[in-house]
Amino acid sequence: MMHPFYVGVDVGAATIKAGIVDDAGHPRSAVNVPTEPNRGSTHGLARMCEAVRAAVKAASMELHQITAIGVAAPGLLDIPAGVILEAANLPGWRNVAVREHVANTFRVPTAFQNDANAAAYGEYWAGAGRGARSLLLLTLGTGIGGGIVFSDRVLEGAHSHGGEVGHILIEMTNPRLCGCGRRGCLEAYASATAVVARTREALAAGGQSSLRQIPSAELSARHVFEACAAGDALAAEIVEETAYYLAVGTASLMHVLDPDVVVFGGGMTAAGDSLLARIQAHVNKLAFPVPAAKTQLCYASLGNDAGFIGAAACARQLVRPLA
Amino acid sequence: MMHPFYVGVDVGAATIKAGIVDDAGHPRSAVNVPTEPNRGSTHGLARMCEAVRAAVKAASMELHQITAIGVAAPGLLDIPAGVILEAANLPGWRNVAVREHVANTFRVPTAFQNDANAAAYGEYWAGAGRGARSLLLLTLGTGIGGGIVFSDRVLEGAHSHGGEVGHILIEMTNPRLCGCGRRGCLEAYASATAVVARTREALAAGGQSSLRQIPSAELSARHVFEACAAGDALAAEIVEETAYYLAVGTASLMHVLDPDVVVFGGGMTAAGDSLLARIQAHVNKLAFPVPAAKTQLCYASLGNDAGFIGAAACARQLVRPLA
Repeated sequence: MMHPFYVGVDVGAATIKAGIVDDAGHPRSAVNVPTEPNRGSTHGLARMCEAVRAAVKAASMELHQITAIGVAAPGLLDIPAGVILEAANLPGWRNVAVREHVANTFRVPTAFQNDANAAAYGEYWAGAGRGARSLLLLTLGTGIGGGIVFSDRVLEGAHSHGGEVGHILIEMTNPRLCGCGRRGCLEAYASATAVVARTREALAAGGQSSLRQIPSAELSARHVFEACAAGDALAAEIVEETAYYLAVGTASLMHVLDPDVVVFGGGMTAAGDSLLARIQAHVNKLAFPVPAAKTQLCYASLGNDAGFIGAAACARQLVRPLA
Repeated sequence: MMHPFYVGVDVGAATIKAGIVDDAGHPRSAVNVPTEPNRGSTHGLARMCEAVRAAVKAASMELHQITAIGVAAPGLLDIPAGVILEAANLPGWRNVAVREHVANTFRVPTAFQNDANAAAYGEYWAGAGRGARSLLLLTLGTGIGGGIVFSDRVLEGAHSHGGEVGHILIEMTNPRLCGCGRRGCLEAYASATAVVARTREALAAGGQSSLRQIPSAELSARHVFEACAAGDALAAEIVEETAYYLAVGTASLMHVLDPDVVVFGGGMTAAGDSLLARIQAHVNKLAFPVPAAKTQLCYASLGNDAGFIGAAACARQLVRPLA
């Protein structure tokens, strides 16, 4: 096994992304295949295998050169069993034995992981967390996901629910409704969805803002961050509050996990370094002095490739001894 | 090494507790030595060694029968270095190289750990968490401490700040002042100190209660739980709120760590099973269905011995391979 190569597969609701990754964490190919989740899980499993073959072909390689495969998936999982139990964005997929199907198809060691956990492991292996011993990833998108890695191990949890860091409770007084159906979660305050909701509320309350020019239905978090950068006061307040909420969650997580590095990923990081600086400023006040001073806060570096690179890292872990 | 024995030492502000622990986690002796922290750290180090000798003698053993020693300590630590950096309850103790001193004195492998982490590891090895793969301990006393164990490893954190679970932030609106000087921490809502503070506030607001018979300066959390058990409505509301706050913290920690078992220890568990049942009822609503249904919530079983038994477990870990 002089030059092991891995295939990482990141199953999303719209697209299955896959790529060949070498033993140093560098992608050698990246392909996209439509998931078409409404065609059912059997079709989905076939699509995953199609993505593996396409990734191998795109790297001008052959299947026999692949040492192991990793699959990252969304939804409610049984990670040790390699099964998608159910997933909101994959309607009708129930008890889908992903790992078994992929392993039986390609006859190589096959890993299975939650997509956010895989992204965290990808950043740990080959991204913003390279060289760290422990990492917390917060993915700031429509929701807030994340993952935790300690000493080369993903914190999967006893019931495949580890690293659901968007669902720590940060408020008890009139807590905002979260996408999960509960109230007071970090995600309900600081996701892109929450940024838009809070902006709409501020506009409805009569605040002056350049954002009034945008039809309410089209308003996005990106608009808010752009208006903030352009000097809009209402947008600036929303962004500042968002940074505060994220710092509340981050400080709590630092007090529990005390990782080497906290990595922020997802679409909202397009807001740029000023958001990160605002989060850091609040963390400095909210966290204990030692972790506040020593824990590195940074942005993810693998972008949308984190999922399949992390899935490949999980594949690699199957065939290499733990550190 | 047919019958390894360990000495565990739990350094407290008032008392240093030590005991011999066998390889199955059973204590063979337990002794107490006064810390007398005001006599300085050199005196304190001598007291720790005195406690080791007293524990050996109390078990009718000899020092050469000891395989390893573990020391658990409070305060701000550098755990990998084996050093107490500073501690609020050990005034003047600065940069105290505990592990080096103990190891040089007894010439056996010596472990060093945070006292709450050690208690968690003790419960994991030989207490309420026996047989679990992962455990979260919340110690409900004057403050709220705790520790986290995954796959036979204590989560120390990158900067010795892992497991500070009393300092997750659960409220942003008029957040209560915490003993740590910050605001909104779980400890500020649900420690024994917080129970007393909230009860005094409820009494000051004019609520009727049997607790008015107790001089305010003497009021303790135990009084509040006893009055609740006796049917006092104001006390019952305080207890119910306490259970809710603890459930908010517990649900958040379950979403991050997803342990097999959550163990509650410390003086407040004297409130009995009704408190645990109230916490469970709120967790059932606040946590995701799978961890809510599957994560075991229970009380600690080692009492005040958890610290030295856990310290002994850390000693044992030095000389036994990781699971």
